[in-house]
Amino acid sequence: MFGPGDVRILSVPDPIIQHPTDAIVRVTRACICGSDLHPYHSMPTSETGSPMGHELIGVVEQIGSSVSTVKKGDFVIAPFAYSDNTCPFCLGGFQTSCVHGGFYGRPEVGGMQAELQRIPLADGSLVVVPGTVDEKLYPSLLTLSDVYLTGFHAAHMGRVEAGKTVTVIGDGAVGLSAVLASKQLGAERIILMGRHTSRTNLGIEFGATDVVAERGEEGIQKVMELTGGLGSHIVLEAVGHMPAYEQAYGIVRPGGTISRVGVPQYEQAPIGFASLFGKNVTLTGGPAPVRAYLEQAIPQVLDGTIDPGRVFDRTVGIDDVPAGYEAMDAREALKVLVTF
Amino acid sequence: MFGPGDVRILSVPDPIIQHPTDAIVRVTRACICGSDLHPYHSMPTSETGSPMGHELIGVVEQIGSSVSTVKKGDFVIAPFAYSDNTCPFCLGGFQTSCVHGGFYGRPEVGGMQAELQRIPLADGSLVVVPGTVDEKLYPSLLTLSDVYLTGFHAAHMGRVEAGKTVTVIGDGAVGLSAVLASKQLGAERIILMGRHTSRTNLGIEFGATDVVAERGEEGIQKVMELTGGLGSHIVLEAVGHMPAYEQAYGIVRPGGTISRVGVPQYEQAPIGFASLFGKNVTLTGGPAPVRAYLEQAIPQVLDGTIDPGRVFDRTVGIDDVPAGYEAMDAREALKVLVTF
Repeated sequence: MFGPGDVRILSVPDPIIQHPTDAIVRVTRACICGSDLHPYHSMPTSETGSPMGHELIGVVEQIGSSVSTVKKGDFVIAPFAYSDNTCPFCLGGFQTSCVHGGFYGRPEVGGMQAELQRIPLADGSLVVVPGTVDEKLYPSLLTLSDVYLTGFHAAHMGRVEAGKTVTVIGDGAVGLSAVLASKQLGAERIILMGRHTSRTNLGIEFGATDVVAERGEEGIQKVMELTGGLGSHIVLEAVGHMPAYEQAYGIVRPGGTISRVGVPQYEQAPIGFASLFGKNVTLTGGPAPVRAYLEQAIPQVLDGTIDPGRVFDRTVGIDDVPAGYEAMDAREALKVLVTF
Repeated sequence: MFGPGDVRILSVPDPIIQHPTDAIVRVTRACICGSDLHPYHSMPTSETGSPMGHELIGVVEQIGSSVSTVKKGDFVIAPFAYSDNTCPFCLGGFQTSCVHGGFYGRPEVGGMQAELQRIPLADGSLVVVPGTVDEKLYPSLLTLSDVYLTGFHAAHMGRVEAGKTVTVIGDGAVGLSAVLASKQLGAERIILMGRHTSRTNLGIEFGATDVVAERGEEGIQKVMELTGGLGSHIVLEAVGHMPAYEQAYGIVRPGGTISRVGVPQYEQAPIGFASLFGKNVTLTGGPAPVRAYLEQAIPQVLDGTIDPGRVFDRTVGIDDVPAGYEAMDAREALKVLVTF
C-alpha cells in the first residue's frame, strides 16, 4: 500500500530465513482485515510502500535451525502477531505484549497478502492443524488467525457466561465473530447493534437474539427498553470510534463490563463518575492474543462446532487484492478471502 | 458545612420516622472521611449548609412499622449509601447503584456527624453486629461503614489473589485499607506508593512489602525496577486525581488491572492504544457497595483477623468536629473518629 486507496501487487524477492528461529510459510489463504482499511483511508503517501496483511493459513516450506515445533509440510495457522510464547506476558496469556514479539506489515517482516511469508519466532508463532485438512474448512481456519479469535477475545475478557445479556456494537466481521463467541460461551441474550441487514442476518444465524439498527441516543434507548431499563451486563465494542464507546457506557448496567476490541481511534475518553466510575463499570480489552486461544479453537472448527468462516463473502485471487480493498471499503463485501 | 473551611455544629430538630421503612439510629461513633475534604475545599458557600458525614456505628432507637430485620436496641453498622438490597443491582452486588437507594449528606436524609440519624430502607441498609460489642472494637467496626470496605472493594474488583503483585497508590486511610485487604486476599507482594512515613509505616504493618515515596515518572521507574521491568499485576488507585491515574497505567503490566476507588476528580482521561488498550489493561472500580461485603467482614473484626480501625489517629467529641476537619485537611491527622 502506497497511500490512501493505492494498493499495488508487486513482485518482490522471496523471504529468506534470517534467524535460526524463523520459518518460511507458503500461504494457502490470506485475507483483508477491517483494520487494513485504516491505512487505506489515511496512511501518508509512501515511496516504498507498506507490505500488507497479517492473517494466513499455509504450509511450512522451510525452517530455521533452531525451530522444533513445526516442520516442512505442516499445515499451520499464524496469529496476527508473532511471539515467543515463553516470556512472562505470553505465559500470562497476553502474547500481543510479548517482549520479543511484534506485528506484521512492516518492511522488516513483510505482510501476509503475499505468496510467501517469513514467520519470526516460529516455535511460538505457528500452530499446526493436525491431519488432512478439508479445503471447505480453510475459511474458518483462517479466521483463527485474527477475526474470530478477536471476537472471542472480546467475549472472554468481558467474561461472557451463561445467564448474561451481551450487547455487541458493530456488525463488521469482528462484531459478528463476537456474537458467535458469546453464543459459544453461553450468553442468554445477544443484542447486535448494526444497520446492514445482510450482516445482522448472519449475526442472527450466529446467535444474536435481537438486532438494534438505531445508533446514538436512539440506540441507547432501544437497548435500555430491551433490557427492562437495566442495561446490558456486558458490552462488546467492535468498532473503535468514539460514538461506539459512548453507546457502550450508555447501555452497560451498573457493575457491568465494556470489552473493546475495535482499535480505538481516540486516546482521551470519558471514564469519570458520570460514565464509568459512578456505576462501577469495568473497561477491558485490547489487541487479541489469538495465540492463547488457538489450540482450543482449532478442534471446534475441525468438528464443525463453529463456522466463523461464514464472515467471508467475497474471494479474490492475489492479483485482485486491490479490488478486494475497494469492495470492503465500499461495504459491498464484509470480508475478503485471498487465494493463490 | 456552609462553605470551604466553614464547619459548624448546630442544634437541629431530631430526625423522625418518615416512611414505614425508616429507622432512627443513635450514633455511637462517627468519623470524617477523606471525601468530606472535597467540599471542605471547594463547595459553593451556602446559606442553609449541608449536613455532613456518612459513616456510623450506633444503636437502633426506633423503627418504622414495616422494618423487620433490626429492632430497638440492636447495635448496627450503616453503610455509607442506603439501599433496599433487593433490586437487581443490589442482588448483583452493586448496592451503590440501588434503584431506590441514595447517599447521605443531603438535607432530606441528613448526615452522620450527628447524634441521631434517620436510615432510609433500614432493612436493606443496616447490618446488626451480634452479641455484646467490646468498645475496643468500635473503631474497626466503624471502618466497615466505608473506609476499610472501600479499600476491600478496590482489591476485590482488582481480583487480588495469591501470587499477585499489587501496587497501592495513595497512603490515605483508603489506600492503607487497600493494603490490608490485599494482604487478606493473599497478594504476594504489596507496593505502597506514599510519602508520609507515619502512614506508610502503618501500611507496612498492614502488609505492604515495599514503599515507594517517589511520584510521577520517578515513581513509575521505581515500581518498574521493583517488578523486574514487568510492572504490577494489579494497581489500586486510592487518590482520584489525574496524576495518580497516570501513574497507574504507567506501572500496570500487560493484561493487568487498574482498580479505582478514589473518586475521580476528572471525567476525560487517556484510555486509547498508548495507555490502556495496547497492553490489554482492565480498568475497574467505583463507589464501594460496602453492604455487599459487611456480613463477611464483621466476624473478621470480631475475631481479630483484621484491625482496620488503626487508621484512626485522632478522636474528637462532636463539638470539636471542625477541628477534626482542620487536622485532616492539614494532614496532621490520617482519619478522625467522632465520639458523643
